[in-house]
Amino acid sequence: MPKKEKGKLRIIPLGGLNEIGKNLTVMEYGEDIIIVDCGLGFPDEDMLGIDLVIPDISYLVANQDKIRGIVLTHGHEDHIGAIPYVLREINPPIYGTKLTLGIIKNKLTEHVLPSEPQLNCVKAGQTVRLGQFSVEFIHANHSIADACCLAITTPLGVVVHSGDFKLDVTPIDGDMMNITRLGEIGRKGVLLLMCESTNAERPGFTPSERKVGKSLEYIFSSNEEKRIVIATFSSNVHRVQQIINVSAKHGRKVAITGRSMTNIVTAAVELGYMTVPEGVLVDINEIRRFKPEELTLVTTGSQGEPMSALYRMAFGDHSQVTLGRNDLVVLSSSAIPGNEKLVGRIINELSKNGVSVLHDAVVEVHVSGHACQEELKLMQALTRPKYFMPIHGEYRHLAAHRELALDMGIEDRDIFISDIGKVLEIDAKGARFAGTVPAGKVLVDGYGVGDVGNIVLRDRRHLAQDGLIVVVASVDTDSGLLLSGPDVVSRGFVYVRESEELMDEVRAIAAEAINRCLDAGSPVDRMHLKNSVKDDLSKFLYAKTKRKPMVLPVIMNI
Amino acid sequence: MPKKEKGKLRIIPLGGLNEIGKNLTVMEYGEDIIIVDCGLGFPDEDMLGIDLVIPDISYLVANQDKIRGIVLTHGHEDHIGAIPYVLREINPPIYGTKLTLGIIKNKLTEHVLPSEPQLNCVKAGQTVRLGQFSVEFIHANHSIADACCLAITTPLGVVVHSGDFKLDVTPIDGDMMNITRLGEIGRKGVLLLMCESTNAERPGFTPSERKVGKSLEYIFSSNEEKRIVIATFSSNVHRVQQIINVSAKHGRKVAITGRSMTNIVTAAVELGYMTVPEGVLVDINEIRRFKPEELTLVTTGSQGEPMSALYRMAFGDHSQVTLGRNDLVVLSSSAIPGNEKLVGRIINELSKNGVSVLHDAVVEVHVSGHACQEELKLMQALTRPKYFMPIHGEYRHLAAHRELALDMGIEDRDIFISDIGKVLEIDAKGARFAGTVPAGKVLVDGYGVGDVGNIVLRDRRHLAQDGLIVVVASVDTDSGLLLSGPDVVSRGFVYVRESEELMDEVRAIAAEAINRCLDAGSPVDRMHLKNSVKDDLSKFLYAKTKRKPMVLPVIMNI
Repeated sequence: MPKKEKGKLRIIPLGGLNEIGKNLTVMEYGEDIIIVDCGLGFPDEDMLGIDLVIPDISYLVANQDKIRGIVLTHGHEDHIGAIPYVLREINPPIYGTKLTLGIIKNKLTEHVLPSEPQLNCVKAGQTVRLGQFSVEFIHANHSIADACCLAITTPLGVVVHSGDFKLDVTPIDGDMMNITRLGEIGRKGVLLLMCESTNAERPGFTPSERKVGKSLEYIFSSNEEKRIVIATFSSNVHRVQQIINVSAKHGRKVAITGRSMTNIVTAAVELGYMTVPEGVLVDINEIRRFKPEELTLVTTGSQGEPMSALYRMAFGDHSQVTLGRNDLVVLSSSAIPGNEKLVGRIINELSKNGVSVLHDAVVEVHVSGHACQEELKLMQALTRPKYFMPIHGEYRHLAAHRELALDMGIEDRDIFISDIGKVLEIDAKGARFAGTVPAGKVLVDGYGVGDVGNIVLRDRRHLAQDGLIVVVASVDTDSGLLLSGPDVVSRGFVYVRESEELMDEVRAIAAEAINRCLDAGSPVDRMHLKNSVKDDLSKFLYAKTKRKPMVLPVIMNI
Repeated sequence: MPKKEKGKLRIIPLGGLNEIGKNLTVMEYGEDIIIVDCGLGFPDEDMLGIDLVIPDISYLVANQDKIRGIVLTHGHEDHIGAIPYVLREINPPIYGTKLTLGIIKNKLTEHVLPSEPQLNCVKAGQTVRLGQFSVEFIHANHSIADACCLAITTPLGVVVHSGDFKLDVTPIDGDMMNITRLGEIGRKGVLLLMCESTNAERPGFTPSERKVGKSLEYIFSSNEEKRIVIATFSSNVHRVQQIINVSAKHGRKVAITGRSMTNIVTAAVELGYMTVPEGVLVDINEIRRFKPEELTLVTTGSQGEPMSALYRMAFGDHSQVTLGRNDLVVLSSSAIPGNEKLVGRIINELSKNGVSVLHDAVVEVHVSGHACQEELKLMQALTRPKYFMPIHGEYRHLAAHRELALDMGIEDRDIFISDIGKVLEIDAKGARFAGTVPAGKVLVDGYGVGDVGNIVLRDRRHLAQDGLIVVVASVDTDSGLLLSGPDVVSRGFVYVRESEELMDEVRAIAAEAINRCLDAGSPVDRMHLKNSVKDDLSKFLYAKTKRKPMVLPVIMNI
């Protein structure tokens, strides 16, 4: 760490802290900015109707002439998914490994962009110079191939960014995470370690991906008379490779179904991340040529997603596959929090149709892709950082990760639990939080990016809870006459045909409120008129039904 | 089994199969009906705005003169929660143990009933004669005190209904489940076993409630300098007893917070289900008199329920308790599927405030109240039933329970996986499914019972997804003139102030559609007019925004 350097390094997470997903970290030194990852998040359950969430990048837009590049750790949605949206506003060069870029290219075909994206392929071991930063890509193990940690050399010292990782001593592609290189970098001195916290609450080591292979071997051996259907995350190339291997060994053909699974397997084979023995892959449209027990089907839908291939199979809506007593479905996955009920729905439906189901609560058919406590401590032991910032996790995970750092001997004052938009400033004197920049969640709903905010969401929640009542009347505010109506229309409140009496009362109360305001003399205040209708009706309806439908008066002046 | 008996026994579940909760089973023989349990269920996530779900009891209302009584296995909501609603329509005598009835009495104070309920207290070991049925209550272990299995003698033989149970060899009240009595009954011959299936997918035995006591002992010993706050299910009287015991041992006072916790602890102490050493319980309003480390707080909110005492503590909104670095919160519970995110929100908020948090993923501070596979097999081994019906569970659980029965040597043809409304008919010749009776979910929303059905829910889901657009216009259908409007009001669609251009386009398209219909000549078909507005706008909006807001045209004829 060159002590005389006078500049300041600013570390600004714009996503991934106090939330799951939408990972994006800004690093700024002088006139240079680099961006690490550019992910999306999934909406919370109270973000009704929202498709996905991306980071607020107004800080980047305001400083776009400083941006030297976006560096990507791996190809998961929560690390690359915001790229098509971010590229609408800024277009810096993008650096990532081959598989990561392959996935991005596929994704970008669905978007129209103002200018050509600049994708630059990097191999683990290579270093990219970006302004005053140089970024070394270091091979890591994860639940997607071609993942990297980053060692980012700055004028003040080296920042290690873990990306998402686990240590797999027996990885499927034979390529263990390059902890030797991390150790070398650590020996020279690391200024700051930014490390992912997903499994910081879980003790021990994450099992090797190979463990799943052993479970699969056992499942295939003991179900030789059945067709085997395996659902998993499409991006888990090594998992799919293992399924192909064990199928080939047992003389089965493998057919792929589900759009994202087909896309990724095609890309992975093309790019050389998957090796398929000659003749093992067959088209899903040709599976009738084989006996059921000669087939393995690999499918999307392990999170119970409606419209996924597995969901359609379960509910008898898949054009090529009908499941029954002769089928075994393996969910090679674990339910992401919030998806338990969706997954349960599929298991129930499959069970009803006599299909056998195996999932991770019964057999070890899934392992995590993230480091558990011992691996997180190993990362700290190797890099021996001066400062430590846990990233990628809700507060509980960041706090648990801090405990690990304290156990490893890092001083409390050198550990920084940050937040999105919060600036960590490091200079020759030390490190400290120094203000904030704009940050937040930008909601994507259909084609709309950012046009749904708190007010719209509040209305959706209100409508979802108790529905609405629209009261329409035509009045002549000059003469103070009610010309027509009030008409009452309700949706999502009560079943109107069985509640005629209630709706009559609603009409009467609305009429009463309108006439009261009109009788009060001109000029009639339309806002007052609306509020009177709203208040009288809301009060009446709550007393009568204990519900609070949205009351929407529309008063036309003729 | 008296072979000459000519009558038919009919077993009709009206709830609790292919769903979690709302347990209710009807048993019918000749002119006699008894009802086992009368529970409520919680709404699925797509039942927007619904408070709770009760069984459709139209079959019982139609046959109310046959009903001899309701027998209750225990006092959990999913077994007794529908009673206040069912008593509005029928009022048979109710039989249950002391604690069960105590909880019901408390619950009934919040409801106005047409006639006085008939509550009859029964002790485990006693038998109640109800028409041609006689019902013996048999002590069981469960996560609430005073739970029972039922042995129901019918003219055709004995039906054993397990209620909810586990086998706890070292229960807190010293009273092990009476498996001896079950064995005696089994030796004499059991016609049908109806057994709960909650944990039918889980191997092994459920640990004893006492295991939680050991964890608590460890937690209290290693946190002597902290105030300890423990959240658990209020009905788990034995859990609360253990918390009181370990607190007393460590010289701590115990304060209770949360309405249901206070209610149940008061009832349990009064009824003798809980023993509190003199001076240990203190009022929550008096905790300031004690040092933090001299206190244990027992609270509701272990499922993350907004408005619960723990939630209010976490978010700084509890009038007596503010949590900080000196507090340890223990979640002595496990998240019910669907509640994981709510629980996570509390853990995050507590962590942010520096509170230490322990939950069941970290320490064994919770055990299930339901039998695992070995206990379920034990139940079969003891009762040795001729016929077997798994109950209380989604299909996956019922199917897993059937596998256990097959393992135990019950023939496939003697195992009946039923469904709500499905009639199992047993006579001297055998058992078979024989038709159905009306059954289903009745939704409770505010004061309304059953007035929200599929159409209302469909509208709520539609409104929740993309909001709505109301188009109001006054026309003279005789002259074919547009008198006023169209006015456009939207809620939950886009933020209108930032989308003025879009709303102008909406108005123009609506006007165009209205004028087109009016110009087509009289008589103007108002339905056609509305549909034109709806279709044109929906098409335009989807093309423009990829959203499908509800379009609600209100056309006034003046």
